[in-house]
Amino acid sequence: MRRHHRRRSSTPSVDFGEDEEDDEEETSSEARMKCVSCKEDYSSRDAGTCRECYEEASETEEELKREIEDLKAKVNFLRFWAPPDPLHHLHQQQRTVPLFSDVVLVASHDESGNSTPHPVPVPANRAVLASRSPVFRAMLENEMEESLSGTIKISDVSYDALRAFVTYLYTGDACLDELMACDLLVLAEKYQVKHLKTYCEKFLISKLNWENSLPNYAFAYQHSAKKLLDAALTLIMENMDKLSKREEYKELVDKDPRLVVEIYEAYLSKQVNTAVHKDPVAKA
Amino acid sequence: MRRHHRRRSSTPSVDFGEDEEDDEEETSSEARMKCVSCKEDYSSRDAGTCRECYEEASETEEELKREIEDLKAKVNFLRFWAPPDPLHHLHQQQRTVPLFSDVVLVASHDESGNSTPHPVPVPANRAVLASRSPVFRAMLENEMEESLSGTIKISDVSYDALRAFVTYLYTGDACLDELMACDLLVLAEKYQVKHLKTYCEKFLISKLNWENSLPNYAFAYQHSAKKLLDAALTLIMENMDKLSKREEYKELVDKDPRLVVEIYEAYLSKQVNTAVHKDPVAKA
Repeated sequence: MRRHHRRRSSTPSVDFGEDEEDDEEETSSEARMKCVSCKEDYSSRDAGTCRECYEEASETEEELKREIEDLKAKVNFLRFWAPPDPLHHLHQQQRTVPLFSDVVLVASHDESGNSTPHPVPVPANRAVLASRSPVFRAMLENEMEESLSGTIKISDVSYDALRAFVTYLYTGDACLDELMACDLLVLAEKYQVKHLKTYCEKFLISKLNWENSLPNYAFAYQHSAKKLLDAALTLIMENMDKLSKREEYKELVDKDPRLVVEIYEAYLSKQVNTAVHKDPVAKA
Repeated sequence: MRRHHRRRSSTPSVDFGEDEEDDEEETSSEARMKCVSCKEDYSSRDAGTCRECYEEASETEEELKREIEDLKAKVNFLRFWAPPDPLHHLHQQQRTVPLFSDVVLVASHDESGNSTPHPVPVPANRAVLASRSPVFRAMLENEMEESLSGTIKISDVSYDALRAFVTYLYTGDACLDELMACDLLVLAEKYQVKHLKTYCEKFLISKLNWENSLPNYAFAYQHSAKKLLDAALTLIMENMDKLSKREEYKELVDKDPRLVVEIYEAYLSKQVNTAVHKDPVAKA
């Protein structure tokens, strides 16, 4: 919310001191100043920083912005093109950069309902895979089956998720929805691609609400996603009464009662802490 | 330069308004405030921003810092390991990641005085080279000699510069001195690696002074390094009297008089502009 302009300075540039003289006649008991940033008048009650600190902060901001530009340019330089999609390749107008592929990945269990009788291989480079994932590196460095055959089978994954996974390894980017974020998090955990796991976790945390907190908690628990787990647990504890009446809750009790016990333990521990905080004497 | 503390607040947190009341008794004619950033007192004459703008700026700074952290993590994810140095490979303690190399680069003219009778090939990946340089891409995509033989000859370059060049294509980083920056800028121009050219140009600009401005100007001119050219020209024009007595100047007149003419033309144009600026009537 902007304060109302009391007057405009004749010069658009920063004008220190001038206000003081002008305003002294108007309001001798309270000095009014013009903010060097928003150019609006303010009283000493609303004062922020001194001029020196403002100038330092402005310089810092400029430096940070320059650093961001440099880093963005570096990301653009370092990212690879996304490997072409063999399924859509013929329809693509844009010419893709050649991949010089020396390995293919195959979704060995296509759960997407895709009716392709033979799984479509996703082309890639051994160098890229080994650089991004220590699991691929071990697989390709040693004379394992995958290295000799040039085919890496990825189980329990849809073709679309596999393609998104490979694209991420090349570009550091993925187009996520909640399902895709879960699929990629599982792949990221399995192939130890930390950067992707963090990326998916951040996305899932941004989509958390009390209604999806239980399934997210169970998912995070299963895949050791600590930040998602903590965020979901916080939401669960804030909504225990509502959640314990829901179908997901009953399902979780049936399927994984130990997990539900952990939730109650965390809930109890929080209540005790809150009580101690409210009444420090009780602690003694 | 920090101002002297007039008094310390009892609370370390931001305290608005309080100053006003306390100080009004001391200096009724001039309100004194405590800067929320450096915590020092200041008078309205030294006022910077209002509180609202200060808070906005602090939030912006935090956001920019988070963005920088994210970008740095992405750069780390996207950068490749540097290819191993065959010359020093045996001495290296650290285990390098396998390169899965499918092409080698060879410095066909080693100007460093290196006495190696046969040039040492630098291993690389076609996919990486093609992704970083449109020249390599065209070379490797089409069935050219380099693509068929798997050997790319790079002329007029030392082994060290070639290795630094390939390392940059993998990592986006180089360890520069002025000679190396020039060597890499030449390679970057030849193979159209814009990011590296900018990187070298920035480094050379940071090392510019009036004494090296002439050779830098000639170098920038030869390799179309516009920003370095402009920076060097500015320095040259500021030091024309000193520079015109130097040996480099005489050499440049002998070697490339056209370049010297361009310097004088820029100098003249600057003088005319300055004159017009000083005496606007002369323009009419």
